[in-house]
Amino acid sequence: MKAFKIPEATVQRLSIYSRFLHQLMDEGEDTVSSGQIACGVGVSSAQVRKDLAYFGEFGTRGVGYKVDELYGYLMEILGLDHEWNVIIVGAGKLGSALALYQGFRERGFVVKAILDVADNKIGTKLGQLQVESLAELKNKVRDNDVHVGVVTVPAAEAQKVTDEMVEAGVKAILNFSPRVLKVPNEVVLRNVDLSVNLEVLSFNLVQNK
Amino acid sequence: MKAFKIPEATVQRLSIYSRFLHQLMDEGEDTVSSGQIACGVGVSSAQVRKDLAYFGEFGTRGVGYKVDELYGYLMEILGLDHEWNVIIVGAGKLGSALALYQGFRERGFVVKAILDVADNKIGTKLGQLQVESLAELKNKVRDNDVHVGVVTVPAAEAQKVTDEMVEAGVKAILNFSPRVLKVPNEVVLRNVDLSVNLEVLSFNLVQNK
Repeated sequence: MKAFKIPEATVQRLSIYSRFLHQLMDEGEDTVSSGQIACGVGVSSAQVRKDLAYFGEFGTRGVGYKVDELYGYLMEILGLDHEWNVIIVGAGKLGSALALYQGFRERGFVVKAILDVADNKIGTKLGQLQVESLAELKNKVRDNDVHVGVVTVPAAEAQKVTDEMVEAGVKAILNFSPRVLKVPNEVVLRNVDLSVNLEVLSFNLVQNK
Repeated sequence: MKAFKIPEATVQRLSIYSRFLHQLMDEGEDTVSSGQIACGVGVSSAQVRKDLAYFGEFGTRGVGYKVDELYGYLMEILGLDHEWNVIIVGAGKLGSALALYQGFRERGFVVKAILDVADNKIGTKLGQLQVESLAELKNKVRDNDVHVGVVTVPAAEAQKVTDEMVEAGVKAILNFSPRVLKVPNEVVLRNVDLSVNLEVLSFNLVQNK
């Protein structure tokens, strides 16, 4: 994995701020203070100011931020000012859920294909998509200018699928399998273990006692 | 949301360290250095030592950590030395995927029920479970000693379902809906927006250019 100067927690919060700003735009708000953002998303206003300060000077003292400007800027920082084409490998329940997940599309992530090896899955309809054979991986990545691959296969298959994605030219991989994966330095990898989320909760439940 | 002294990023890494230690135990390893842990999970060894230092002194200089001891200790810190009963509300693709997700069970999270309001979903089999009516929420929480609720309903329903969970006695909520939710102070809330994961990738892709 590569190291970046901006902490990942900050990037995650920028993503959350941008959603909140989008809500404000929908509600017709023109300006917003760091305090309002903080309150809206559940962090301190000092944290909001610190996160935004990574990217230079925003806002006017006593007035706050222009909602649409800050939103546009955050979307640009996050690389969301254009679409990203995505491929999913693994058409189980989770892969299928992700293929249909509206939230991806809303944020500019377009699932171009979902692939599997199982004959009983290939051909299944998932909204606009149809599950296709993993043998199509290279063609799909090339023909659809795919940058992002999502791995939703069983742990035992995850490294093999990842290697194939990298070879096919995928530049960023989101791994939902519980396996620690290896990728070349130039490929961005992010592991999503859904249990980790529950474990953060159980940690906090225990601390609360 | 409540504030805790241990950064959430640390808690997430402890969870990841514990998985890696479990792998080592399976492979018959007795001791491990912070460098090995670091290499195995893709962080710096200074980070590993810093994370573990939150919880006191571990390991012996030049020898490292005893794998089973450190594993046991991390599981205890994470509140994973016993089982947690979980209820899922929303039996769409994502809720169904989570109800069947093996990784939860492996880490001690036992899904006791999955509820929905849709007549065409109620009664559907999901592994050992059967989708039940949301009207059963209170009974299910009480009868199964449920601590954790998972929200996988559409955004428009999310706050209502959350309020019902809190009223039923759920102490921790994992929210997969794209809505910012409000909970009382004593309830632990964690939002999982699956798009955020893709956005961290796109941020990194843009920075790499």
